[in-house]
Amino acid sequence: MQIGFVSAESGQGRAKNVRNILLKNSVNIMLCAVCWWAVGYAFAYGKTAGGLLGVSHFFSDGETFDSKPWFFTWAFCLSAVTIASGCLAERTHLFVYPVYTAVVSIVVHPVVAHWVWAPDSWLNSRIGCPCRFLDFAGGAVVHIVGGLTGLIGAILCGPRMGRFEDGVNKEIPGHDVSSVSLGSLMLWFGWFGFNCGSTYIYMADGGPAASAAVSRVALNMTLCASAAGMTSLVVASLQTGTFDLAVCCNGLMAGLSASTANVGFITPWASCITGILAGLLYVGCSRLLVRLGIDDPLDSSAIHCGSGLLGVVVSGFLARPAYVRSMVGRSCGGLVYGTRGGIQLGMQMLGLAVSIAWTAFWSVVTFVTLKRFNLLRVDQQTELAGIDNMEHGGPAYPEFLQRVQSSRTGF
Amino acid sequence: MQIGFVSAESGQGRAKNVRNILLKNSVNIMLCAVCWWAVGYAFAYGKTAGGLLGVSHFFSDGETFDSKPWFFTWAFCLSAVTIASGCLAERTHLFVYPVYTAVVSIVVHPVVAHWVWAPDSWLNSRIGCPCRFLDFAGGAVVHIVGGLTGLIGAILCGPRMGRFEDGVNKEIPGHDVSSVSLGSLMLWFGWFGFNCGSTYIYMADGGPAASAAVSRVALNMTLCASAAGMTSLVVASLQTGTFDLAVCCNGLMAGLSASTANVGFITPWASCITGILAGLLYVGCSRLLVRLGIDDPLDSSAIHCGSGLLGVVVSGFLARPAYVRSMVGRSCGGLVYGTRGGIQLGMQMLGLAVSIAWTAFWSVVTFVTLKRFNLLRVDQQTELAGIDNMEHGGPAYPEFLQRVQSSRTGF
Amino acid sequence: MQIGFVSAESGQGRAKNVRNILLKNSVNIMLCAVCWWAVGYAFAYGKTAGGLLGVSHFFSDGETFDSKPWFFTWAFCLSAVTIASGCLAERTHLFVYPVYTAVVSIVVHPVVAHWVWAPDSWLNSRIGCPCRFLDFAGGAVVHIVGGLTGLIGAILCGPRMGRFEDGVNKEIPGHDVSSVSLGSLMLWFGWFGFNCGSTYIYMADGGPAASAAVSRVALNMTLCASAAGMTSLVVASLQTGTFDLAVCCNGLMAGLSASTANVGFITPWASCITGILAGLLYVGCSRLLVRLGIDDPLDSSAIHCGSGLLGVVVSGFLARPAYVRSMVGRSCGGLVYGTRGGIQLGMQMLGLAVSIAWTAFWSVVTFVTLKRFNLLRVDQQTELAGIDNMEHGGPAYPEFLQRVQSSRTGF
Repeated sequence: MQIGFVSAESGQGRAKNVRNILLKNSVNIMLCAVCWWAVGYAFAYGKTAGGLLGVSHFFSDGETFDSKPWFFTWAFCLSAVTIASGCLAERTHLFVYPVYTAVVSIVVHPVVAHWVWAPDSWLNSRIGCPCRFLDFAGGAVVHIVGGLTGLIGAILCGPRMGRFEDGVNKEIPGHDVSSVSLGSLMLWFGWFGFNCGSTYIYMADGGPAASAAVSRVALNMTLCASAAGMTSLVVASLQTGTFDLAVCCNGLMAGLSASTANVGFITPWASCITGILAGLLYVGCSRLLVRLGIDDPLDSSAIHCGSGLLGVVVSGFLARPAYVRSMVGRSCGGLVYGTRGGIQLGMQMLGLAVSIAWTAFWSVVTFVTLKRFNLLRVDQQTELAGIDNMEHGGPAYPEFLQRVQSSRTGF
Repeated sequence: MQIGFVSAESGQGRAKNVRNILLKNSVNIMLCAVCWWAVGYAFAYGKTAGGLLGVSHFFSDGETFDSKPWFFTWAFCLSAVTIASGCLAERTHLFVYPVYTAVVSIVVHPVVAHWVWAPDSWLNSRIGCPCRFLDFAGGAVVHIVGGLTGLIGAILCGPRMGRFEDGVNKEIPGHDVSSVSLGSLMLWFGWFGFNCGSTYIYMADGGPAASAAVSRVALNMTLCASAAGMTSLVVASLQTGTFDLAVCCNGLMAGLSASTANVGFITPWASCITGILAGLLYVGCSRLLVRLGIDDPLDSSAIHCGSGLLGVVVSGFLARPAYVRSMVGRSCGGLVYGTRGGIQLGMQMLGLAVSIAWTAFWSVVTFVTLKRFNLLRVDQQTELAGIDNMEHGGPAYPEFLQRVQSSRTGF
Repeated sequence: MQIGFVSAESGQGRAKNVRNILLKNSVNIMLCAVCWWAVGYAFAYGKTAGGLLGVSHFFSDGETFDSKPWFFTWAFCLSAVTIASGCLAERTHLFVYPVYTAVVSIVVHPVVAHWVWAPDSWLNSRIGCPCRFLDFAGGAVVHIVGGLTGLIGAILCGPRMGRFEDGVNKEIPGHDVSSVSLGSLMLWFGWFGFNCGSTYIYMADGGPAASAAVSRVALNMTLCASAAGMTSLVVASLQTGTFDLAVCCNGLMAGLSASTANVGFITPWASCITGILAGLLYVGCSRLLVRLGIDDPLDSSAIHCGSGLLGVVVSGFLARPAYVRSMVGRSCGGLVYGTRGGIQLGMQMLGLAVSIAWTAFWSVVTFVTLKRFNLLRVDQQTELAGIDNMEHGGPAYPEFLQRVQSSRTGF
């Protein structure tokens, strides 16, 4: 329990980045809670119907929560929603947030979670594969779902006004780099909750084996994040000549995302390698987004979708059979350990493919529908004046208005 | 243990609202710790003397803390103190804070806590009632005590200069809405500590029953807070036409306050209903304060006193007998379940009445005495110039002074 | 585990003080993690080689972490590094941070930790003393190591430009006193993690005795911090006539530092006395630094080194034999309890002397070497313009630059 709320608290860290998305994030949290209680939890963790979908425990019916506590699972769902919201900031219609939040927390995340984490889902037990798809704490279920939803939203929404004017890439800096940095560090430590908590769920009998596993998970995460943060910082500074705090923080986040899928299955050395790859991949993805003219204000898709992919693939190469056996009870492992490595790697690819396909399908449907009804983006006037002024304030709060303006010009 | 400090950490969230009460809040925390160690804990959780007052464990004497750990109980007392401090901000004499902190943490909160929570207090066992007063985690003991103390203080102190000038209601916006929002979210998650920790105290034998109860508590809180936040947001936006972040945050807080008294005793559906009522009640109370010309800078009394009342009353209607029995060992329940519902509802009313009477008595005595000695309010000159400049800074810190000024005018 | 990350999260609190050290602190964290994994943990907690140094578990080899979890021990090492970084802010070359971080986390902290905490180190078992050196949760190992390293760095680095111009003491106020205050409170509550977590390590068999000890530790810390904060506030206000928030916060920190070395070994009354002494000592040390012309922007050395010393000495006088026996298994105690008090006090002095000598030696070597190669301090031009502008920004981020400038002039 404990675990969940620190993680969720950390979710707020991102909220700091941009003041005018605070309300939207608050609404996301509240709506996601209701959706998750009503339907999402049931779809994800209820008794399976043919391996496709959970169909019990709607509205927390039956009151037994088995091994997966409601709050902890909600924190995962909320993370996916929050990751996506980062990509949509500063130009999206207020109506978009509740819509996509409902879609992600009712249809997208729960179904992927069921496929990936239910031991008796079609993916894990009905296709005759001796290995399970390995996603330790949500590399696919949270980070790819959230990052990809956000990426598709950002593409369909288009860039903010002035971001790529006349074909030139113009960075729009955040208003408070101190908040970004502190938020990232909070997220880092909140992440321990997700991964260490997941360890206890895999090893529910507890005891010294579970304690040792938690220690290893904490160490792996720390190394992966540190390696990724330092790698991005150094690589980016070689290109630009300056040390950029934001790149360092985002690299660190990328390292955490990359470690999420595999942190319990690999060794500390493998985590260092994963971290270095994640740092490089983040810098690359970030540049690719710019090259493609996609405006992701927080680089959320580069961080979460890119590294989520990497993390899942890493398990196919580096998962240590002894760890996999103790966690999920299958005698499988990554390619470098030889033990049926090809099968595990294939399984990772299959799981990735279906997660991506399901997420992409619903995101496209959602955002295209919103666009059709002209509900995706605020009008130009509102965007220029700032959404705060047009939708959340107005003449009723003159001092507040003044402050917002001054924070746009001066501060 | 764990639990307590996250809760307490969250207490700071409120501190962010207004910069010049940071020092006062720090002093409150420190003084409250000493008072609670010396006397408060003993009055509240010591061996009862005739059901009226605890009289053992002064200065942590005897070194045994039984089932109620010192730190956790201190966090409750501190919450009551902090809630009250919100109502007094920006115009109160520095001397007021230590005085009322001492009164609340020595006399008011401990006595109410003893009456409400000690199984052998006069209220719970000496009046021949088969039911106990139900206050799960401090709806009366913390929120009504804190909110009512603050309300009485705010009334006796009078509004800030310029708040109701010429009979017109002039909102005085906070200086940093981002802090308000993040503080609220932190409080939300800190609250899990209070409520889930309380569950373990009710069900000290632990085991799966306790785990299930903790899960239910976390779910109920989340639903109640979400429902309340969304309700206030929607209701207020219908009236004003804008979506106000502060209203949403305060509604959320009101939902949490309302859930505190009953979260372990009711079902998730009942929590949703409680949340909706709390959201409506908050908007109503907030308007009522303005109508009555009471200036509560943070709306603390509307949030905590109003919702605290609601939460206690809700138990009288909606408490589920099975939960009540498993928590407090009495075969009682709310009116809708029929099982001696009238008795339980009457008990709730009685408990409310004595909590309110005791709190009101001491608040009036304290603040009237302070007013008599002209120690309640800073003089006009200080209020206009800002308390920071007059009492905490001055010419020794020119840059700091400049910053404060600029934060008043520009930022 | 839990414990560690809240502590570490709190470490960020300090980071808020000064915006341009955020990157350096992030790098410190990441580099410290890698060093601690590779070598530091092994030197500190590995199997001892002649009582001088641990020599097993390099790169978390063997994968067994015994009773000391990696993450928790890393948080201690990181604290020492972070404390030192405070003293060096705003004038130090970017290159200094990785160098001293590596030295502290590879050579200084691990060796002192091994001497002080390994039961079979030369200090604790090979010099024929019936008592052990008592350092509950790092008074010497963390606070003296960090504070003294920082102090020596600050002396060798020299004051910031304009700090002591023409022999006059000119305070350079921080840019955001609200962050300082909230950071201190976060640190306070994070500290519970260190001390309560340490209690579980001393009393690994758990049970009610451990719970009672944790309760006592939490109470002692709270009282010591509260007494110290109020003492500094009152003493400083008697001298200056104003109530200074920063002094209160720093006094509180000093109380926490002072309690670290002894919190498990002394009574609540003794903690109050320790707190009062710590509050006085902090005000005195702070003035002494100014008198000596040493510029420590955050008063870190006054807080941590001074109070760390005090805390260790206090154990020699006030440690209660019953607590010492239950924690470390030796029948020793402080001077006031008579039980071989002189031996314990002598042991404390010996431990202090070797900790100080080892730390001072490496600090002098490190910073003198950096100075010789002219890598200690940024050039005058950079210092005047601000390190952010010269090394981290530049024309690529015009708006960001503008914001930094405005935050120097206005905000």
